Amino acid sequence: MQLVEQYLRDHADRFVEELKTLLRIASISADSRFRGETRQAAEFVCCQMQSAGLTAELVETAGHPIVYGEWLHAGDAPTALIYGHYDVQPPDPLADWVTPPFAPDVRDGYIYARGATDDKGQMFTHLKSVEAWLTSVGRLPVNVKVIIEGEEEVGSNHLEQFLTQHKARLQADVAVISDTSQFAPGIPAITYGLRGIVACEATVRGPRQDLHSGIFGGAVVNPANTLARLIGLLHDDRGRVQIPGFYDDVAELTPIEREGFAKLPFDEPGFQENLGVAALGGEQGYSTLERRWARPTCDVNGLGGGYQGEGPKTIIPAAATAKITCRLVPHQVPETIAASLKAYLASHCPAGTTLEFTTWHGCPAFVFDPTSPFINAARAAIHEAFGVAPVLIREGGSIPVVATFREQLRVDTLLLGWGQNTDNLHSPNERFCLADFHRGTRASAHLWQQLAGVRRA
Amino acid sequence: MQLVEQYLRDHADRFVEELKTLLRIASISADSRFRGETRQAAEFVCCQMQSAGLTAELVETAGHPIVYGEWLHAGDAPTALIYGHYDVQPPDPLADWVTPPFAPDVRDGYIYARGATDDKGQMFTHLKSVEAWLTSVGRLPVNVKVIIEGEEEVGSNHLEQFLTQHKARLQADVAVISDTSQFAPGIPAITYGLRGIVACEATVRGPRQDLHSGIFGGAVVNPANTLARLIGLLHDDRGRVQIPGFYDDVAELTPIEREGFAKLPFDEPGFQENLGVAALGGEQGYSTLERRWARPTCDVNGLGGGYQGEGPKTIIPAAATAKITCRLVPHQVPETIAASLKAYLASHCPAGTTLEFTTWHGCPAFVFDPTSPFINAARAAIHEAFGVAPVLIREGGSIPVVATFREQLRVDTLLLGWGQNTDNLHSPNERFCLADFHRGTRASAHLWQQLAGVRRA
Repeated sequence: MQLVEQYLRDHADRFVEELKTLLRIASISADSRFRGETRQAAEFVCCQMQSAGLTAELVETAGHPIVYGEWLHAGDAPTALIYGHYDVQPPDPLADWVTPPFAPDVRDGYIYARGATDDKGQMFTHLKSVEAWLTSVGRLPVNVKVIIEGEEEVGSNHLEQFLTQHKARLQADVAVISDTSQFAPGIPAITYGLRGIVACEATVRGPRQDLHSGIFGGAVVNPANTLARLIGLLHDDRGRVQIPGFYDDVAELTPIEREGFAKLPFDEPGFQENLGVAALGGEQGYSTLERRWARPTCDVNGLGGGYQGEGPKTIIPAAATAKITCRLVPHQVPETIAASLKAYLASHCPAGTTLEFTTWHGCPAFVFDPTSPFINAARAAIHEAFGVAPVLIREGGSIPVVATFREQLRVDTLLLGWGQNTDNLHSPNERFCLADFHRGTRASAHLWQQLAGVRRA
Repeated sequence: MQLVEQYLRDHADRFVEELKTLLRIASISADSRFRGETRQAAEFVCCQMQSAGLTAELVETAGHPIVYGEWLHAGDAPTALIYGHYDVQPPDPLADWVTPPFAPDVRDGYIYARGATDDKGQMFTHLKSVEAWLTSVGRLPVNVKVIIEGEEEVGSNHLEQFLTQHKARLQADVAVISDTSQFAPGIPAITYGLRGIVACEATVRGPRQDLHSGIFGGAVVNPANTLARLIGLLHDDRGRVQIPGFYDDVAELTPIEREGFAKLPFDEPGFQENLGVAALGGEQGYSTLERRWARPTCDVNGLGGGYQGEGPKTIIPAAATAKITCRLVPHQVPETIAASLKAYLASHCPAGTTLEFTTWHGCPAFVFDPTSPFINAARAAIHEAFGVAPVLIREGGSIPVVATFREQLRVDTLLLGWGQNTDNLHSPNERFCLADFHRGTRASAHLWQQLAGVRRA
């Protein structure tokens, strides 16, 4: 382990340079104009795996390729399945970035770039810890299989097919993902629960084309007013979602969980100040952590329709669109929620308008057993690298692959986040603290050691 | 008059060519990127006036220039003040145009281009009738003053200043504007009433920047959901606007007006089919013509906020915006309505969000006295040129200058529309029937003759 530690210290600066190279590649999976860059990122990750000492290859899919690597010479030791993604969210609004999203810039100990924390930087820690073991010691204490995909930000549409096709080859004892956050600076965390998600798009159409609002105003139902009215019907005054049946399958928090959340040193005023809002909000009757981690939501992600340029334009728009995501908790079913949302909107769509509804992707929520020996192994590794024991938390985001791993491979996932909630992921000026990058790499290196001691099921 | 008629016949084709030249100029007043083109249109109109025999000049304003021309050699005969505008609406959505908006194309007797009917084509009829008189006869039977401005589509912000500065010079007995429509093909109309308008923009702001909808969803008030909710509160289930006091100053239609409207040969099924909707809509308890002409509205013209690109993006937007116009009827006051709208939205804006509200422009509604001798003169001129007597109608659109003329110059306006409601004004594939263009030019030429017989007040 000393050899590994020494290697990590000696090569820390190079690791950052290589991360910068990856961050310069605009691998925006949602936007087909960036197909070339997305592939380029995959190729770079594949090279990195190979130089780390893994056998690695690009696996083609109907979408963006999957990078797969492995090192399986640890005999009877457990097998860890590492997962990450090389694709990133679109960077807009571009004007809000201090430095361009794909020109990584280090300021005050943070590296700023789209993907810095989500997930290029975090994923990189595992590639580098593997490199450190294989280069300095010549072997790993566990077997590792590594999947780095390129469609996480658009629903991981082709990952499931890959997993089912290679079920036997991908068998593992535990999965490891670093795509979450620490609880706060200096308080590392193991995330034992995630919310699910279903993403939809609703378009209300009215007249064949935009109409003069003077000549036709009052005679036709306005699709933009109608869409807004429909969205307004999604919540009541207490922040409760009004889609019929929305809460039917919701697992309420246990008193023990509510107590545990309440004990966490959550700086609510600081959280609010960081967001720049005069008040927090949401479903009444639940604390902020409860609302973020264990209560479902129905949020509009984007609104569009009619004239959005400079100045006024006196039209009735032909159509208006809303992108909507619901965050889900156990045991809500994404398909059921999407169908209920569609039916609810359609039932309130007046004559003279029509509703178009698309469901993009979904995954159920996930809760991990916090008494597992794998959790203990991770706890020890993190304690070693960060100097403090991690707290057990849940997370409001969704990592669909966690549900897929459980479903397809019957493997549970250690969610070990090295980032911070203030790292602006999915926002302008995304960043990753370089000290966390190096601590994460070290924790990862210790994790392989700790996992070697876990008795296989 | 025969000389004039002959001249109109002989030069009809050239008139169309010159109109095409004007239509090729993208004089989009709302978009500052088209400042150069907008000025170019003004210069072209000025040249046209000069070659018609008027003295004409460009009058600079803080915005787009006003073109002013006159011919004042008719002694004691009445003075007509002709008004039109050379600016046009933005042409988007561009993809819906069969031929490009600024490449005028003649198909099946229609000329297609942005501005074809609103207002370049209609305004041109008066320039050409003046040219016909001055070139063929050498004089006009009335004095004419011509104002062609470049900011009609953005609120005529600098016209009022021009009118007040040149009040004495602009004195006239009647104003003439062709910027409305015939009642239907073959049924020319004199428009004796217009709705007013007030145009606003409401932006709901929440967090400092877009947020990850998983990590923060449920903890903050979503500005896009909030904006939608606010818009949803603008109407009740019967289509009544819910802004407090909105209907307080509304002049209800008289039974005689309602009977008159009901007698018009309005093809409601054809109207509906042309719009491509399965049902018409709006305020319950009023006919479609009543709703369009004499009832106030509150329409969203555009919605924007958050992610509108391809695919999903799981964010809570930092802000969302709606452009809103209210169409007004006598005796609603634009400033009062805008203030009420702002107060209503603000009163429903929850803690954790803020409302930004802009009022763009407004003008009150207008109703002309249908027994005026000027109306009779126009009726005779139109009868002569179109072969049928015009009907008296109202119009749902707003022509702010009509209110301004009454206020500043104490002159009433003859609204003589040569276009059709189906001419797609403010929409893709705007057009103008060339037969109407020529009939309108002829009616205009007859109007000067008829007005000469009206006894001055």
